[in-house]
Amino acid sequence: MPVQERARVTRGSIVAGAAAVFEEAGYGSASLSTVAERAGVTKGALYFHFSSKEDLALAVIEAQHALVTKEARRTASYGRDALSTMVMICGSFARQLVREPVVRAGVRLTLEASAFGQQVTKPYHDWIRTMESLTRQGQAKGEIKDAVDAAAFARYLVASFTGVQMLSTILTERADVLERIEDMWSILLPSLVPDSKRDEFLTLVRLSVADTEFHPNPQA
Amino acid sequence: MPVQERARVTRGSIVAGAAAVFEEAGYGSASLSTVAERAGVTKGALYFHFSSKEDLALAVIEAQHALVTKEARRTASYGRDALSTMVMICGSFARQLVREPVVRAGVRLTLEASAFGQQVTKPYHDWIRTMESLTRQGQAKGEIKDAVDAAAFARYLVASFTGVQMLSTILTERADVLERIEDMWSILLPSLVPDSKRDEFLTLVRLSVADTEFHPNPQA
Repeated sequence: MPVQERARVTRGSIVAGAAAVFEEAGYGSASLSTVAERAGVTKGALYFHFSSKEDLALAVIEAQHALVTKEARRTASYGRDALSTMVMICGSFARQLVREPVVRAGVRLTLEASAFGQQVTKPYHDWIRTMESLTRQGQAKGEIKDAVDAAAFARYLVASFTGVQMLSTILTERADVLERIEDMWSILLPSLVPDSKRDEFLTLVRLSVADTEFHPNPQA
Repeated sequence: MPVQERARVTRGSIVAGAAAVFEEAGYGSASLSTVAERAGVTKGALYFHFSSKEDLALAVIEAQHALVTKEARRTASYGRDALSTMVMICGSFARQLVREPVVRAGVRLTLEASAFGQQVTKPYHDWIRTMESLTRQGQAKGEIKDAVDAAAFARYLVASFTGVQMLSTILTERADVLERIEDMWSILLPSLVPDSKRDEFLTLVRLSVADTEFHPNPQA
């Protein structure tokens, strides 16, 4: 393997090892020695890539945000209507929270960041921007009610998704996160679409959090 | 002062000092020496009351929850309808988040708890129980729509309140928390009450987060 490629692979193993350790222990109790051990690298190799625990935590957060954003882009590429796209993005994020170790750890660290004196704001701003733009698209096509304040709704959706997954983590170790996201949409839908459209979206919500991979037909 | 009373006062100063230090520095960076200094007590006195930083953090969380619960009980005692009571409880909690140092610190620590290996669950369970019972009361009197799943709504309200105040802390240091709680209710109301009642509740929402003390007439 060329040197650069080897370095990239090592860095990846360290980030994966760090994710596992942070997810199990939390930021406060995680140690760099445990991360090196879990990643199967020497402490020297670890320090070559990351100068501190903080650095490592920020790398896990970045890797998580990249994974979730990639999945959201894929969902958006299906070309469904805006509200369906929002529902499906939340569903795939929630499913990644259940099954992807780096996503689990990254979200936990984003929430814990203030405990280690960091404010991680970029992921929130990115999601608010995406959701606001989708809300406006849905309104322009008459699919989302005009009375909705797009900026306020986008901020609230991101805030409440954050709160829902956090409470699910605290109260059930995320065992119920998919059902709780389903509840969230059931409560939000009356603000967003006319009664006549609600059942159709509730079905989509249920599919979007279903545990099996959900690949809607882009032509549908 | 009798010995017991003196101990109580010292304990109170330590909790207040700890709240100030945790709020400024976060749990990770706070030190017991800084807390002793801020509280104006010796480290010996501090260790007499609290054996560790963790102990101290849990005491701040407990003091915060007691303060907010007391205010919520006062609000409930006005005897207004259930949904108004829920709106007013959220409003007074949000106002305490702005002006009460112990509430600010306690909520921050509750969120940061997982970073120090603690899961603080009691406050969430208490709030969910209160909100579920109020939702059912409102439904029994025909004030809240029957279609609402009371348990799901209560859990979602607590989760989204938590997410809203957290995002406000991260993005604006809580400068916009009152407006964001107002947004939350604007988005939730269509699920809860018929269109004809919405303006009345929006006015109440606006009053409940107004910066001046809000004492509705119990007879109203």
